Amino acid sequence: MNQNMEVDNERMEKSLRKLGEWKEVVNELLEKEFKTYTKRAKEIHPEASRMVEYLRNFSMRGGKRIRPGLVIAGYKAVGGNNHGRITKAAVSLEAFQTYVLIHDDVEDEDDERRGGPTMHKMYEEVYEKEDMIGGKEKYGRNIAITAGSLAGSYSVDTLSKTDFDAETKIKAVRKLEQIHRYTAAGQTLDHTINHRKTEEVTEEDVLKIHELKTAQYTIAGPLELGAILGKGTKEQIKVLREFGIKAGKAFQTYDDMLGLYGTKEKLGKPVDSDLKEGKKTLLILKALENGNEEQKEKIKKALGNKNITQKQVEEVRKIVKETGSYEYSKKRVSKMIEESKEALKDSNKINPEIKEFLLGIADYIITREV
Amino acid sequence: MNQNMEVDNERMEKSLRKLGEWKEVVNELLEKEFKTYTKRAKEIHPEASRMVEYLRNFSMRGGKRIRPGLVIAGYKAVGGNNHGRITKAAVSLEAFQTYVLIHDDVEDEDDERRGGPTMHKMYEEVYEKEDMIGGKEKYGRNIAITAGSLAGSYSVDTLSKTDFDAETKIKAVRKLEQIHRYTAAGQTLDHTINHRKTEEVTEEDVLKIHELKTAQYTIAGPLELGAILGKGTKEQIKVLREFGIKAGKAFQTYDDMLGLYGTKEKLGKPVDSDLKEGKKTLLILKALENGNEEQKEKIKKALGNKNITQKQVEEVRKIVKETGSYEYSKKRVSKMIEESKEALKDSNKINPEIKEFLLGIADYIITREV
Repeated sequence: MNQNMEVDNERMEKSLRKLGEWKEVVNELLEKEFKTYTKRAKEIHPEASRMVEYLRNFSMRGGKRIRPGLVIAGYKAVGGNNHGRITKAAVSLEAFQTYVLIHDDVEDEDDERRGGPTMHKMYEEVYEKEDMIGGKEKYGRNIAITAGSLAGSYSVDTLSKTDFDAETKIKAVRKLEQIHRYTAAGQTLDHTINHRKTEEVTEEDVLKIHELKTAQYTIAGPLELGAILGKGTKEQIKVLREFGIKAGKAFQTYDDMLGLYGTKEKLGKPVDSDLKEGKKTLLILKALENGNEEQKEKIKKALGNKNITQKQVEEVRKIVKETGSYEYSKKRVSKMIEESKEALKDSNKINPEIKEFLLGIADYIITREV
Repeated sequence: MNQNMEVDNERMEKSLRKLGEWKEVVNELLEKEFKTYTKRAKEIHPEASRMVEYLRNFSMRGGKRIRPGLVIAGYKAVGGNNHGRITKAAVSLEAFQTYVLIHDDVEDEDDERRGGPTMHKMYEEVYEKEDMIGGKEKYGRNIAITAGSLAGSYSVDTLSKTDFDAETKIKAVRKLEQIHRYTAAGQTLDHTINHRKTEEVTEEDVLKIHELKTAQYTIAGPLELGAILGKGTKEQIKVLREFGIKAGKAFQTYDDMLGLYGTKEKLGKPVDSDLKEGKKTLLILKALENGNEEQKEKIKKALGNKNITQKQVEEVRKIVKETGSYEYSKKRVSKMIEESKEALKDSNKINPEIKEFLLGIADYIITREV
């Protein structure tokens, strides 16, 4: 999508290298945390150790560590300079992400994540291997709900045991819980619109989900959390939030485009999973708004269809382009990314190095391969 | 069951009155918290407000507030004297309990709780009333998972915004998350043994669940959390933990007895729900160990049977008594309660008034009506 936008490729590559460096450190720290939790779990029961082992497998098998990266960026943006301390805190957001993904997979009944089985599928394997009784799906689902919650607990624990002063940590914990509430509201709204008839769902609903689940949770929240840990001023936090909300909305809109036009290899999940799940994306809503009767009918037949064929996926892809819906989303994404950059550019309150980093991240958001 | 034990009725009544007084204050504070959360949710989306309203309904419709009561007791046990401050913190454990119950009901597919519909059932009603699509059970379950998690978020938030100093609050948050981990381990083990063939399950497994889910979560954890907020010494906390673990194990063993021999009115849920769910209680394990072939066969047919009849429930009740299993559990409960009292009696480290309160609570645990 970068061909229509002014993208500074060099700056973007630099941001990605930085994100990659931070990812390495976050991964090392994650491994260390899992060692601690394994040790504790072993003292409790073998089933507790197995759960930590599975969480480790799920967490370490993939993921770009964008959220922890943005916690680090938020901290440095306001002048924080204790790299070791902030990376330990950043781990918290990755544990939170693990929690969200596991529950999300249970709720959407997805089989694959990050190129491997989802948590409930991992436990369905246990059920089979150990010749259990009472229903494979039920066992997988119930244990995965608990595993997700356990990862959620790690997110609070890892944050509250860092070396920041207690006042600052309490503020950060409260921010984390605010992110938690936004995410829950987004999830609730997401499920609700997916269970409403398509004609009852508005563009406003969809954008609210983008704001809550992605803008707040993925971009603005992590940046603000980092800024709180760096004792940033209200003005600094406001700039980061503005950037985050706009970039985050763009991120999700673009993610939905990837979800329809991406490949299984890039996504780490089947390309038909959004359609199967009946996800009412902006792409789908606009195509239904602008399509003719035949096109509408085809989309409605594909949406939420568990037995969708590859041909139907191709048809929906075609219709979304033919109705101008693809172009509409693309323009929205470009506009929001421009606005996110504006929010940063005018500010002299943010560490210039991090400003450059975030501008590169904004470009990355709309340059991910479809 | 009190006829065989030395129970000081006057002391017990006094403890229950105290617990009742604290319950009133905790309920007032819970209402206040729900008002705050409603106000915030309204700014987000009507679906967010509905969720807070439903959480309020679920939370306020019943419950003895034992856990918040024990937080208050733990605080006062070590000399804490700011009643207003500790009651606000105690609310945290009630929010946590709401979280645990909602997920528990989803996992066990229970319809009723505290004399009303479970959270997923409440949302199934929404689904029907608002003529939604995509599967009633799925919608109810998915939204309830999120609602439970939201209540979990409240538990951290209410604790971290109290007026205790930040150092103490961070310690308390970490304790809360330790309770969270114990509860998750207990839940995992509970589901796992319920999905294992009965002959693979040991008494040790069952007692471990009692330790994790009830002793740690219901009694010892809340007492310790309160003691941490009251800046108790290690010795004081150790005494409270010892009392809590023993009384908690007795509590759960007795609870399983109530689950089989209680009435729907007292339990707030159908009397056959433990059997339907296939819950492998100490009562069931011992009856299977000591029963003859016919008795064993009858229990196995009842356990996990979704279509269990009232006659089958009566038969299981009879067999559990005939095999001496009921008496075995009863003796274990009495012994553990005696030991819990011993742990307190020898200590001169605990506020005498609270010592009396806890001794009364220990008696209450085994005097609840069957």
